[in-house]
Amino acid sequence: MATAADTTAMRRAVALAARGLGSTSPNPVVGCVVLDASGHEVGAGHHERAGGPHAEIHALRQAGVLARGGTAYVTLEPCNHTGRTGPCAQALVEAGVARVVYAVADPDPRARGGADTLRAAGVEVEGGLLADEAEAGNAAWLTSVRLGRPHVRWKYAATLDGRVAAADGTSRWITSPEARADVHRLRAEADAVVVGSGTARADDPHLAVRGVDGAVQPLRVVVDTEATAVRAGARVLDDAAPTLVAVAEDAAADHLAGTDVVRIPRAAGGRGLAVPALLAALHERGVRSVLLEGGPTLAGAFAAEGAVDEVVGYLAPVLLGAGPAALGDAGITTIADALRLHVTDTTRIGPDLRVTARPASLPTTKEH
Amino acid sequence: MATAADTTAMRRAVALAARGLGSTSPNPVVGCVVLDASGHEVGAGHHERAGGPHAEIHALRQAGVLARGGTAYVTLEPCNHTGRTGPCAQALVEAGVARVVYAVADPDPRARGGADTLRAAGVEVEGGLLADEAEAGNAAWLTSVRLGRPHVRWKYAATLDGRVAAADGTSRWITSPEARADVHRLRAEADAVVVGSGTARADDPHLAVRGVDGAVQPLRVVVDTEATAVRAGARVLDDAAPTLVAVAEDAAADHLAGTDVVRIPRAAGGRGLAVPALLAALHERGVRSVLLEGGPTLAGAFAAEGAVDEVVGYLAPVLLGAGPAALGDAGITTIADALRLHVTDTTRIGPDLRVTARPASLPTTKEH
Repeated sequence: MATAADTTAMRRAVALAARGLGSTSPNPVVGCVVLDASGHEVGAGHHERAGGPHAEIHALRQAGVLARGGTAYVTLEPCNHTGRTGPCAQALVEAGVARVVYAVADPDPRARGGADTLRAAGVEVEGGLLADEAEAGNAAWLTSVRLGRPHVRWKYAATLDGRVAAADGTSRWITSPEARADVHRLRAEADAVVVGSGTARADDPHLAVRGVDGAVQPLRVVVDTEATAVRAGARVLDDAAPTLVAVAEDAAADHLAGTDVVRIPRAAGGRGLAVPALLAALHERGVRSVLLEGGPTLAGAFAAEGAVDEVVGYLAPVLLGAGPAALGDAGITTIADALRLHVTDTTRIGPDLRVTARPASLPTTKEH
Repeated sequence: MATAADTTAMRRAVALAARGLGSTSPNPVVGCVVLDASGHEVGAGHHERAGGPHAEIHALRQAGVLARGGTAYVTLEPCNHTGRTGPCAQALVEAGVARVVYAVADPDPRARGGADTLRAAGVEVEGGLLADEAEAGNAAWLTSVRLGRPHVRWKYAATLDGRVAAADGTSRWITSPEARADVHRLRAEADAVVVGSGTARADDPHLAVRGVDGAVQPLRVVVDTEATAVRAGARVLDDAAPTLVAVAEDAAADHLAGTDVVRIPRAAGGRGLAVPALLAALHERGVRSVLLEGGPTLAGAFAAEGAVDEVVGYLAPVLLGAGPAALGDAGITTIADALRLHVTDTTRIGPDLRVTARPASLPTTKEH
C-alpha cells in the first residue's frame, strides 16, 4: 500500500526522468529517488544519455551506504540485462535496498525480469505507483517499444478558424514569439523533426533547436518524395544539426550528393512516401520520437496511417476566413470516421493557446 | 479611493447584473448593492426586465430607512431621466444615501447626468470602480449604444483542425452534449439568434432555448436571401419562440405569408444581404445582442463588415482533414490583414474546449 511519502518520492522521480527527454534515445527516460530507512532522501538521479549510467546507478552512488535498508523509487522497472551498463536490479540488491517501488513495468523483452530478480534476493517490490504519470512522461519510448516505430507528436500552428496560412500563402507569423519558443522546446525533446516538401519549399525552414540550454539537436528530416524541394543552400542543410532527406526509390537525387539520403517506397495508391516505411527507417536509425511539423499534406498522410500519437496545436486568436487548413486529407469522409482525441492539456502561451490531445483509443500494441 | 469593502460590494453588484442578461433589452443589465452607514449590506437587486424597476429601486426598497447615510454601489451610472420608471438619481437622493459608487458612466445621452444630479444634492459620487468587469458584463448593451447596432457574438463549433462538418456534410455531433447545453445558455443571453440559409437548409435548426430555467426566448432570425431555405414545416417556424425571416428586397416570399418577413437590400457586389442593413433592422426591433450561429458564409460576411464583437468557439478534440472550415470568405487574402483577437477566456466544457476572444482593436465608436 503506497503511503503519501511513497507518492511524493515517486512524483519527484517522474520529474527527474523528464530532464532526460530528448537525450536518452534509444533508451527511455528514467528517474530514481532513494530514501534511507527513516524516510530521508539520500540519493536522486536520472538517466542522462544513452551509454551513460542508468538513473538507479546515479541515485545509489549518491546514497552510498545510506541506501542500506532504504527504499528506491524508480519510474521504470529496474533492468535485468547487462547492456552498456550493468543490470540495475543487481546494483539495488548489492546496495542493500530493502524495498523497490517502480511505476511502469518494463515492456522491453531484453530488459524485463528486474522485479523477479529483486524479489528472489529478498527485496520487497511494488509496481504501478503513479504509473499513468510515468507512462505519460515516457510516452515516446513506450510507444516505440510497443509499436516498433517512433512515437509521433504532430505539432501545428493555426488560426482559431483552423488556417495555417492566408489565401495568398503568407503565414509569418500566425503565432507569437512565445509559441515559437515553445516549439523549440518540443524539438529539443524529439529525436527527429520531420517536414514535408511543401513546407521545405515554402518556408526553407532551419528546424534546429535554438534557445534551449543543453539541448541535443534532433535529426532534421525532410520528406522530399520527388527530390525537388531540398536544394543546395537550403537552410536545413547547414551543420547546426544532422539532416536526412527521404526520397522515393525512383527519385533522381544526384544533386543531394553529400547529404544523407534515404530511399523509401512510395505510398500505395497515394501521393508521397509510405509512412510506415519512413517510420521504420527512422526507427532503425535509433529515432524513438518524431516531432512532425507539417505541412497539412504530410500530416494528413500520417493521420491516415494512424501514425499520430499526440497532437500539439498552437491556436492563435486570429481569423482568416480563407487559406489552407492545418490538416489535409486523412482519408476521412464522414463524421463517424473522425479521428477522436481527448484533450490532455490546455495552456495559454503568450497570446496563443496550446492544446495537447491524444487519440481516444490508442493504436493496438504489437506485443501485448 | 476605493476600499476592499467597496470592491467586494461592486463585484457583487456586477454578478447581480449578469442575472438580467437576455431579458432586459433594450435596457442594459444593472446590479446594485446598498450598504448601511456601518458597512452592512441592507439591500441588493438587479434590473430584471425592460419596463420593470431599475436595480437601484429594487435595492433601495429592500434597504428602506437603513439606506440613510449608507453607500449605493451601481454597475452603471444611475439614470437621470424619467422613462417607464422614475429617475434613479432622484430616488437615491430621497433615500438619503450619503455616497454613490458606480462602475461605468452612462453612454446613453438621454439617461446621462445622474452623477451631476447626485452631486448637486450633496451626495458623494465616485465613478470607475471595476469599470472593466462591469463593461464586460454589459458589452452587448454598451456596443449597441455606442455603435447604433446590436452586439454580435459569433459562436461556432469546430474540430481541432477547424472543420464544422465532414467532407460529405455530416456534422452531428462534432461537439459534446455539454457544449451544446452551453450554447443554449448563450442563446438565452441573446435577444436574437441568427443563422444563414445554408444552415437552415442543412440542419433545419430549431434555435429556441431549451434547458435554461427562466430563459426569455430570443428572436430566431434566418437570413434567407433568396427566400428558398425556410419552407413550410421548418422547425424554426414553430411557436416556441418568435421568428423573423430576412430576405432580399426582390425575393419571392409569398410562401412565407403568416411569417414575420423583413426585406433587406442585397450586399453591394457580394452574395447575400447587406449586413449593416440587417443589423439596423434588428436594432430597430429592439435587438441589442445577436448570437450568430453560422454557417461559415454568413459568419464570413459579418467578419468582412467588422460586425463580430466577440467570438465563442467550441473546439472538439476531433480531426477530420477535410470538410468546410468554420469561417468562410471574409475578404482577407493576406496575413497582414488577418482579424486579430485577444483571448478573454478558455474553459473546458466536457471533453471540448471553449475559447472566447474579442477583436484586438474595438470598432471605432459612433459617439466617443
